[in-house]
Amino acid sequence: MTETLDPQIAAKMQTSFATQSMMQTMGAELIATGPGTCVIAAEVAPHLRQQQGYSHAALAFAIADSAAGYAALSLMPPEADVLSVEIKINLLSPGSGRLVAEGRVIKPGRRLVIVAADVWAEEPDRPRRHVAVLQGTMIPV
Amino acid sequence: MTETLDPQIAAKMQTSFATQSMMQTMGAELIATGPGTCVIAAEVAPHLRQQQGYSHAALAFAIADSAAGYAALSLMPPEADVLSVEIKINLLSPGSGRLVAEGRVIKPGRRLVIVAADVWAEEPDRPRRHVAVLQGTMIPV
Amino acid sequence: MTETLDPQIAAKMQTSFATQSMMQTMGAELIATGPGTCVIAAEVAPHLRQQQGYSHAALAFAIADSAAGYAALSLMPPEADVLSVEIKINLLSPGSGRLVAEGRVIKPGRRLVIVAADVWAEEPDRPRRHVAVLQGTMIPV
Amino acid sequence: MTETLDPQIAAKMQTSFATQSMMQTMGAELIATGPGTCVIAAEVAPHLRQQQGYSHAALAFAIADSAAGYAALSLMPPEADVLSVEIKINLLSPGSGRLVAEGRVIKPGRRLVIVAADVWAEEPDRPRRHVAVLQGTMIPV
Repeated sequence: MTETLDPQIAAKMQTSFATQSMMQTMGAELIATGPGTCVIAAEVAPHLRQQQGYSHAALAFAIADSAAGYAALSLMPPEADVLSVEIKINLLSPGSGRLVAEGRVIKPGRRLVIVAADVWAEEPDRPRRHVAVLQGTMIPV
Repeated sequence: MTETLDPQIAAKMQTSFATQSMMQTMGAELIATGPGTCVIAAEVAPHLRQQQGYSHAALAFAIADSAAGYAALSLMPPEADVLSVEIKINLLSPGSGRLVAEGRVIKPGRRLVIVAADVWAEEPDRPRRHVAVLQGTMIPV
Repeated sequence: MTETLDPQIAAKMQTSFATQSMMQTMGAELIATGPGTCVIAAEVAPHLRQQQGYSHAALAFAIADSAAGYAALSLMPPEADVLSVEIKINLLSPGSGRLVAEGRVIKPGRRLVIVAADVWAEEPDRPRRHVAVLQGTMIPV
Repeated sequence: MTETLDPQIAAKMQTSFATQSMMQTMGAELIATGPGTCVIAAEVAPHLRQQQGYSHAALAFAIADSAAGYAALSLMPPEADVLSVEIKINLLSPGSGRLVAEGRVIKPGRRLVIVAADVWAEEPDRPRRHVAVLQGTMIPV
């Protein structure tokens, strides 16, 4: 995609991301932003696991929810902020290594923005695995 | 409810909870367990917030997903473990103070267990607020 | 519940229901309305089935979506109408006999209304069975 | 896609579709099947509408649920049948004209199959509109 994001919007997303303390707690990085898209990644660090040693569902949820939210924010006016109304997550396989959440806007709108996200697990010398799919609704505030 | 949980199952839940490092990261406590129910609580600590200072959606998701999962586990054979297949969360109001997630089984089953959870925000001298509702599916493994 | 619905709102719901041709196609009846609640029922007639002879998931969805929508409408101003934003349905057991959908408002709101519904199957001389649970979002228009 | 479906599986899908009386009630046609995909279409006929004259959400749900179910069935052994466990639908715009539901498998599995579907509205001389997105879970039986 050759489209690029307005620098003012991109800066707003960076600032917002930096103020989400949950993102730091998850060790999350804002990898890429575009018009209607956002990528956030995090290692499955030792403090983010469930009882079997894989990533807790809340890690995939956290980075995918934020990636989908910033994808929505990228299409809103500069003064807008965004909140999650609802999110559905299907967990496809256990998460380990590094999780990469790719958020995107399915349908923008003035009153509601419909979003989706995929989460992939990346590990050295292995093809990436599909860990989760999400579908949800964001609201401008 | 006067029903109580089999002590062996209750002990298994406590042990499993203690091995979920994400629960420690969230500052979560296992408050109560019963047959088909589980309550988990966590403060909206400074490291668990979104860009406006409220609880990140992933905090409500994390404790509610685990509460629903343990509610399902409480009705399974002693040797079973449980994984989340899918969860839908609706966010009702901003979370602050202390979040309490009440998980319950809607329909037990050998192949799948359908679960639900409510998340409430508790603050001193205020009625508790309904922060989130969840509906999902757990699978024995 | 001793609360009753404003007669003007109740009449609006009856009129709206009568104009939903899908409700007639499903043989659905508006059984009861209250402030924040609505009950709609339909027989699992021969033209509403899936490949095994049970009710198609779309029948439970149809009456539960409408029941939840009217539950939301009952709490809105007289001039408002309502549309479904999103619905999640978990199917709990095969539907046969007569399906009864009980819709209710979880959280009213000016911009969005969060709703839920349960669908039960009733057959002579048997306890009713829980067929489906739904959770969703309605928007005033 | 040059892959084609095993003729035995394709015939099983046709037979199953013909026994779903709800599909006839919806005026639905099985348009195309492939390995992990299925397309079903239906006119927004006068008997399938909501109170504003657009397609009832249950029409999009019905054809998308079946399209997703047959997409799952296409990847199962010849003797298998499939049931919907849960489906989440987001409604994107009002449905009119002819609805086309494209179902696909996101992740196949022996115990569960994760599926998705998109529903489009087609009208003469207009670009097709995105009416709904769905994400759900099917189980072999």
